[in-house]
Amino acid sequence: MHIRLFLTTLLLVALTWPVFGASEVEPAPNGIRVPEGYQDWRLLSSSYREDNKTLRVILANDEAMEAALAGQTNPWPDGAILGKLVWREARHPQWQAAIIPGELSHIEFMIKDQEKFADTVGWGFARWVGDELKPYGEDQDFAKECVACHMPVKDQDYVFTKLSTLPR
Amino acid sequence: MHIRLFLTTLLLVALTWPVFGASEVEPAPNGIRVPEGYQDWRLLSSSYREDNKTLRVILANDEAMEAALAGQTNPWPDGAILGKLVWREARHPQWQAAIIPGELSHIEFMIKDQEKFADTVGWGFARWVGDELKPYGEDQDFAKECVACHMPVKDQDYVFTKLSTLPR
Repeated sequence: MHIRLFLTTLLLVALTWPVFGASEVEPAPNGIRVPEGYQDWRLLSSSYREDNKTLRVILANDEAMEAALAGQTNPWPDGAILGKLVWREARHPQWQAAIIPGELSHIEFMIKDQEKFADTVGWGFARWVGDELKPYGEDQDFAKECVACHMPVKDQDYVFTKLSTLPR
Repeated sequence: MHIRLFLTTLLLVALTWPVFGASEVEPAPNGIRVPEGYQDWRLLSSSYREDNKTLRVILANDEAMEAALAGQTNPWPDGAILGKLVWREARHPQWQAAIIPGELSHIEFMIKDQEKFADTVGWGFARWVGDELKPYGEDQDFAKECVACHMPVKDQDYVFTKLSTLPR
């Protein structure tokens, strides 16, 4: 009987391990946690920034993707989350003219909730740096930096990214 | 009763419409069709090619993604499909140093089936050009071009792309 209890416990731990793993990442200074399963979200767009030599992919959770497909993104609906995955550039060893993702620079998210994040233009901003996913910012004020940088796209609900064209 | 039949027919047409839509795209000269729902596949990687000024995102179907996550990609398993979405570069109007997807250049796929595609190194190649998704190539021989271009990565089962690093 004891061995069965032990094995059951072991099984439960094994099954829930990835969940524990994800929640081990420290939240951002404004309390936001890394959204669960963002790696599997759908593709919104991509970019390459010449100024800081990074390659980016922007993914969208279901709420954001449906809004984007429907063209309802000004404003984006509450519940929409955009995830930006940012890598330092590397060269493809077998195709030198191709810039590919090298080391992970950071991942960052914009979570739309007009009421909850009223202080930061209706979006909850959060960023985690490097493979170790160290939360960015010393205190809550870090998000002012994010907002300042997003001011040029104030007229499109503070979002730089548009859905890249794909026949559907 | 006639009105009910009419409404049922209308409903059936409405429900199956997207399927008809997808199959309207002409198959590639080797008979391959655009894989259904590829737009929603998971992210494998991204690249920016300086030689032809295109931004690319590489998506994977479930079989391919599971193989990539498990590191079982040499060879990739039968059933794995990689989709490469290629856009001509554009400049972000509010962030000039950012290169973003402009017009769609083409979409292309590699479908792994060791037996079925034995003549083309175990992969079925296909490409559709532009928003109108015009099949690439005059006849079956077009795939020789694909294989030739993929020879530099012969040692990694003819695939250029590796899974971009993301903490999981």
